[in-house]
Amino acid sequence: MKPNLYVALVHYPVINKSGNIIASAVTNLDLHDMARASRTYGVTKFYVVTPLKDQKELTQKIISHWTSGTGSIMNPDRREALELICIRDSLNAVMEDISVGGNGYPKTVVTSAKESPVCITFTELRKMLEGINSYLLIFGTGWGLAEDIVLKADYQLEPVKGNTDYNHLSVRSACSIILDRLISK
Amino acid sequence: MKPNLYVALVHYPVINKSGNIIASAVTNLDLHDMARASRTYGVTKFYVVTPLKDQKELTQKIISHWTSGTGSIMNPDRREALELICIRDSLNAVMEDISVGGNGYPKTVVTSAKESPVCITFTELRKMLEGINSYLLIFGTGWGLAEDIVLKADYQLEPVKGNTDYNHLSVRSACSIILDRLISK
Repeated sequence: MKPNLYVALVHYPVINKSGNIIASAVTNLDLHDMARASRTYGVTKFYVVTPLKDQKELTQKIISHWTSGTGSIMNPDRREALELICIRDSLNAVMEDISVGGNGYPKTVVTSAKESPVCITFTELRKMLEGINSYLLIFGTGWGLAEDIVLKADYQLEPVKGNTDYNHLSVRSACSIILDRLISK
Repeated sequence: MKPNLYVALVHYPVINKSGNIIASAVTNLDLHDMARASRTYGVTKFYVVTPLKDQKELTQKIISHWTSGTGSIMNPDRREALELICIRDSLNAVMEDISVGGNGYPKTVVTSAKESPVCITFTELRKMLEGINSYLLIFGTGWGLAEDIVLKADYQLEPVKGNTDYNHLSVRSACSIILDRLISK
């Protein structure tokens, strides 16, 4: 059974290395890898969040190449994944888009590489996904989501840990592992 | 405890869309993502396998930027990951390099998105990693490893499955999920 799950990759507001709020640039392989992982694990939609006009245009150009351009003929599997992508200006716009589907607003779950006492575990969220609520799993680019986004979220998911003290996975890797932990059989 | 595990990303011999054997180009973010995942899960070394002179030079240039160039000062965490990378001409050269460490040749485990009746499961390999043998986990680029590599390997690992029939994860995602399934606590 498909989970009632949406994924968002946020490019604004995120923080840079110095902790300042910035709008990050869209990375081509984030779109491909996270769309392919989303498709693999039955995610309903994958939202790319940026308010920047040029970044929205670039993202749309990449999507179009693979969903209706030559890429879609050369590689139909890739089309199937990139068709899940929706570009929106803000997380509020994402929430509106999901609510239009008729199931109301989803519960929001932020991800982070940082520990927090309020984190829910993978086991807890996996269990929650079996219920009737829909969930929006939010990933940050740059050095992570702005504090405001984290504080406003309904839940914060525990970080992915390996078996070392190193916690610097790419957002592409983190998203893949998180979806696997939450959804795989 | 760190597993006695090595990872190799093979650019030759791999197959293209038509099933012909090719040497694929090195992808920058494969190096970063797989090095970061390797470091997260305590992998001993991450081998990038290509016999092409220009590709070896390009790969070394990327590694050097992050391990001894300006990237290493800007981002020491990235240095720690990319220091795991070793460039070798062939899988045979990888085997020799590992055996020089004194523990003999590792057992080889190929990964693939395709099902095979001879596959071992994640649970089986996880258990095997607790033993004294060292293992080399082999990933292919392009449309996957050449048949010869698959047939010569000691083991073939079952494919990563989500909860759909879609099995087209990027090698970066597959490597991250596989290491997580094999090694996370």
